[in-house]
Amino acid sequence: MTYCVALKLAHGLVFASDTRTNAGVDNVSVFRKMHTFSVPGERLITILTAGNLATTQLTISELEDRSRAADDRNPSLLETVSMFQTAQVVGDMLKAVIARNDDTGQKADSKFNATLIVGGQIKGQPPRLFMIYPEGNFIEASEDTPYFQIGETKYGRPILVRAFDAEMSFEAAVKLLLVSFDSTIKANLSVGPPIDVQYYANDSLKRGYETRIKADDPYFLKISTGWGEALREAFQHLPDFNSD
Amino acid sequence: MTYCVALKLAHGLVFASDTRTNAGVDNVSVFRKMHTFSVPGERLITILTAGNLATTQLTISELEDRSRAADDRNPSLLETVSMFQTAQVVGDMLKAVIARNDDTGQKADSKFNATLIVGGQIKGQPPRLFMIYPEGNFIEASEDTPYFQIGETKYGRPILVRAFDAEMSFEAAVKLLLVSFDSTIKANLSVGPPIDVQYYANDSLKRGYETRIKADDPYFLKISTGWGEALREAFQHLPDFNSD
Repeated sequence: MTYCVALKLAHGLVFASDTRTNAGVDNVSVFRKMHTFSVPGERLITILTAGNLATTQLTISELEDRSRAADDRNPSLLETVSMFQTAQVVGDMLKAVIARNDDTGQKADSKFNATLIVGGQIKGQPPRLFMIYPEGNFIEASEDTPYFQIGETKYGRPILVRAFDAEMSFEAAVKLLLVSFDSTIKANLSVGPPIDVQYYANDSLKRGYETRIKADDPYFLKISTGWGEALREAFQHLPDFNSD
Repeated sequence: MTYCVALKLAHGLVFASDTRTNAGVDNVSVFRKMHTFSVPGERLITILTAGNLATTQLTISELEDRSRAADDRNPSLLETVSMFQTAQVVGDMLKAVIARNDDTGQKADSKFNATLIVGGQIKGQPPRLFMIYPEGNFIEASEDTPYFQIGETKYGRPILVRAFDAEMSFEAAVKLLLVSFDSTIKANLSVGPPIDVQYYANDSLKRGYETRIKADDPYFLKISTGWGEALREAFQHLPDFNSD
């Protein structure tokens, strides 16, 4: 499993992804699930990946390869003319990779499916955020649904629903994401640190702040412990049920 | 979908279940998912049901029918000699009902599966709590895992993990369950009020307090609103991330 979230704030985008992959509980590895394509001053595109690791790695590798050999029929992610076209290119590639595996006659126990989040900005256009399905089609974040989750989305959703605010600072957004990740990590063994975090300020057109937060990171530990205490305290302050 | 929870406290058992059933989003009904078998002074057995409604209704009906016609080869739930035997009888019935449907040659889009929680006490023995799988086998709650959830379990789990305390009062336990249900109801349309709640004091050997909490119940509204505010406040009080 996996847990990735991207938030569309009023002033930028925030991405976070865990790094645990597993094939059964006895085959656990660390892989990066956040991939950035950037031309400073011109574009920033970040992709988060969830699903079959062979599928997502091949999809990213094909996209990177295309960025190097520019004579392909399809534009590379360094050349797309809009974020919409970017989502189309990524969706087509994802669909093609899945079809290629499905077509080998081999059948795996689990499907080759994967789901991606693609966000970023191209010069002269607004920042946009998309979620791309295994079928290659996609949806875009809006004011009503200003964030996307992929992978193990349920445990970490209630706090996002309650505390997300499009006007929040990057620093508060990272706090929100770490709370959401902490709930997920506590509940699902197949989601685990380190957590990759990146945020992008609108119109900066370059890689923003990036960090990898490890399990023993003092701030993450403070959030994890502090959130448990804060939850218990908040719970204590609500009035008990009265059966009379 | 469905959401049911049972807690094993030091001094008793607490049961809660939603009442929404759906076959698609345009075919939504209200059905009770909490069923109690009781012989005052001698036994109290409560069953919570999740899964295919035809399966769970038939299972409960067969168990009730057996309680009326006592000459069956298997003991009725009013005659089992232990909670362990109770779990066996319920598990065997569930398995038989599922097999009966699977055996008709008809194939439904969704499986006929169901999962049950069975808890209660028989005179002279300790209270026990079991979760019963569609295969008819079961597991028992312990000190390490003192509660069971069935149905849509994920959204409401983080608060259970953080705030459950085996020594908590019935009134605090009902509060905890309503917070857990509120998170679930907010996230999944197929879980909905009214919520049936029941609690049983150890060694009372009779039906305990029972109530049905509707969507417009003032206490439930207070918990729902208050919890949102408390969460946001708790979140504000945690320190923001610092990128320096």
